[in-house]
Amino acid sequence: MESLMNAAEEQQPPSALADPWSLKPESSKNQKPKGVGGFVLVHAGAGYHSESKAKEYKHVCKRACQRAVDRLKAGALAVEAVAAALVELEDSPFTNAGMGSNLNLSGEIECDASIMDGKSLHFGAVGAISGIKNPVLVANRLLSEAQKGKLSAGRIPPCFLVGRGAHDWAVGHGIPPCPSEKMATKFSLSAYKRNKRKMELAEKMETGHKQAKKRRQSSENENGSGCLDTVGAIVVDLEGNVAAAVSSGGLAMKHAGRVGQVAAHYGCGCWAENACNMNPYSTAVSTSGCGEHLIRTMLARECSAAVQSEDAHQALLEAMQNKFISSPFLVGEDRVLGGVIVLRCCRCVEAQPSKHIQGILVEFLWSHTTESMCVGYMSAQDSKAKTHISRLPPGTVAGQCLAIEGGVCRLTGTVE
Amino acid sequence: MESLMNAAEEQQPPSALADPWSLKPESSKNQKPKGVGGFVLVHAGAGYHSESKAKEYKHVCKRACQRAVDRLKAGALAVEAVAAALVELEDSPFTNAGMGSNLNLSGEIECDASIMDGKSLHFGAVGAISGIKNPVLVANRLLSEAQKGKLSAGRIPPCFLVGRGAHDWAVGHGIPPCPSEKMATKFSLSAYKRNKRKMELAEKMETGHKQAKKRRQSSENENGSGCLDTVGAIVVDLEGNVAAAVSSGGLAMKHAGRVGQVAAHYGCGCWAENACNMNPYSTAVSTSGCGEHLIRTMLARECSAAVQSEDAHQALLEAMQNKFISSPFLVGEDRVLGGVIVLRCCRCVEAQPSKHIQGILVEFLWSHTTESMCVGYMSAQDSKAKTHISRLPPGTVAGQCLAIEGGVCRLTGTVE
Repeated sequence: MESLMNAAEEQQPPSALADPWSLKPESSKNQKPKGVGGFVLVHAGAGYHSESKAKEYKHVCKRACQRAVDRLKAGALAVEAVAAALVELEDSPFTNAGMGSNLNLSGEIECDASIMDGKSLHFGAVGAISGIKNPVLVANRLLSEAQKGKLSAGRIPPCFLVGRGAHDWAVGHGIPPCPSEKMATKFSLSAYKRNKRKMELAEKMETGHKQAKKRRQSSENENGSGCLDTVGAIVVDLEGNVAAAVSSGGLAMKHAGRVGQVAAHYGCGCWAENACNMNPYSTAVSTSGCGEHLIRTMLARECSAAVQSEDAHQALLEAMQNKFISSPFLVGEDRVLGGVIVLRCCRCVEAQPSKHIQGILVEFLWSHTTESMCVGYMSAQDSKAKTHISRLPPGTVAGQCLAIEGGVCRLTGTVE
Repeated sequence: MESLMNAAEEQQPPSALADPWSLKPESSKNQKPKGVGGFVLVHAGAGYHSESKAKEYKHVCKRACQRAVDRLKAGALAVEAVAAALVELEDSPFTNAGMGSNLNLSGEIECDASIMDGKSLHFGAVGAISGIKNPVLVANRLLSEAQKGKLSAGRIPPCFLVGRGAHDWAVGHGIPPCPSEKMATKFSLSAYKRNKRKMELAEKMETGHKQAKKRRQSSENENGSGCLDTVGAIVVDLEGNVAAAVSSGGLAMKHAGRVGQVAAHYGCGCWAENACNMNPYSTAVSTSGCGEHLIRTMLARECSAAVQSEDAHQALLEAMQNKFISSPFLVGEDRVLGGVIVLRCCRCVEAQPSKHIQGILVEFLWSHTTESMCVGYMSAQDSKAKTHISRLPPGTVAGQCLAIEGGVCRLTGTVE
């Protein structure tokens, strides 16, 4: 627990712009830049990403960024763009979300997803939902239905639905069902069979703690796609609205009905909050990792609150160290596994001879205690997304050390 | 929103002891008092409690307190005692939890429950569970199983299960199933039929917002048991451990699969945290009311954090006003409906001629924005529980004003 690794100090942050971490939020909130655009940061999970599949992970992150940017360029708000990124991540058979999700103990796919809109502060979530290709679209629909106000007879619309009820609500709202067998992939099925055999073997053999521990370590590393890789995205649009979303197939071999952090727990899987009187920055966070660890530390909300302080990088590093790895809520856990992507942004204006260039300064970061985390990011001004698999420095122990990296980007628009 | 009602200023708080709101936490945490005992505060929900059923509500609160105190006297820790109180509340056909829960849109009973142990900071929850008489026992079992550490092959034990999976896990862990038809009562069935008719009528008639609003108000008041009455309890034992729990049948006519605040969202339904380096007081909170409002304001955790400040009463009043009624997360909600019970405690030592009397000073409070809230409380030193139906002062508007009341109690033990 002692050796805090700060990868960002050793590596050059993949920054889109070198300078302005020191820039302060601009108070002229009423001046909105013209034009459309924004910025997206996605992750394909914190877990273990094998070198052999690195290309695939990066590729899906790239496509997800492109999808979000396409929506932003078409004038979509942050919340629509973040949902579009998630659909792409869910559709990939390589991620543990939507198609190709981990199978549970009963051999079924049950997914969780949630989404939060920083503008309205509304939240929508589904848990343990089966037979829906894109769980994030159900979460998003719950969010948008809730924004319409009360139901007939003054009933309060739900923000979180689970299981069969969630499936039926989705279908009732025009989201097509998808046969479960179509959602499993060759890879997820063979992983299920392999895990099932391992589990049966472990149950037979589990005689001593030491042995169990050894097995635990190896089984985590051997699971090619990692068993913790919830996917997620965070977006800021050119109006300065932020949004965040996550989606997950959950832990491999989880008990049926288990809901992980992404949907279950407001503040744990994703968080988005536009700047307001109390908060100078708009912030968005999406997490990944061991659901139980993310829940008990309320990691998304903690990170969002942390980066309201002056130095976002330092604040996130301290939050990951003190509120996650060394959290009093996780005493006794030998390895605390998770990762976050974070963005915070504020308006900034530059006077120029003929006109004002108004922009949004976006600082973005990722940090993880897992072996690796795959991220991608792109602004609407970029021609293509940048992707990166961040890894813990060699010799450090997953669950006890962390890596942190990030960058800065300025979105520009013109105001009269 | 302006007229903040503070009922406690007008009424004498039903205090067990008059003085020591000013007492400071004692740092000698290693001295534990001998003997067994503790204090319990329960609620039968924040909602609308008709005068005609006042006796029943009070009676079930009394029984729940007695159950918890019986367990405390038998040497149980706070978490066991709080579960015992909840079982009694769930077993009453008058409360909207366990037996006699509200029926959902499909005419089924789906319950939520959660429990938190302030000592280990572990949390267990179930959502949308059917066919189990005491959902809190499943939540408690999840909590205690998680405390045992990892499952075979290093799998992380679940802390939150929903739907069919939760039911099967419970039965697999020796909790007997209960036929659904046995859980509905004559009252809950007739309320379902009445609500169904009302809803159909409302859907036909809902032409103008004004009309809908009028209907909404009347239907809430006519629903004898109130539609928002999650039950809950908080306990401190004589070792100073705190625990909190909640249980609910959820909103009447909710969509199948809807999970409310009690289970769905860590930090929203209940919270318990023993004193530690960062927090001078042990705190426990249990909430009730409109789940979506409690979720989005993370009310239990907010109230727990608030009462770490010097004046618990003032801090809770401000939290209910600023973090609930006027929360930025509930902008646009005309009526913010909920209630909390809160306790905070610290050790205190009094030097006496022959021996040291060490005790725990317990400050307890309840506050609600709903029409009424039914509470009961008892210490192991009391011969019977006190009960009370707190109501908003006449002329005030539910969802826009609040009532707050409380008391103090000192638990004593002897140390060498």
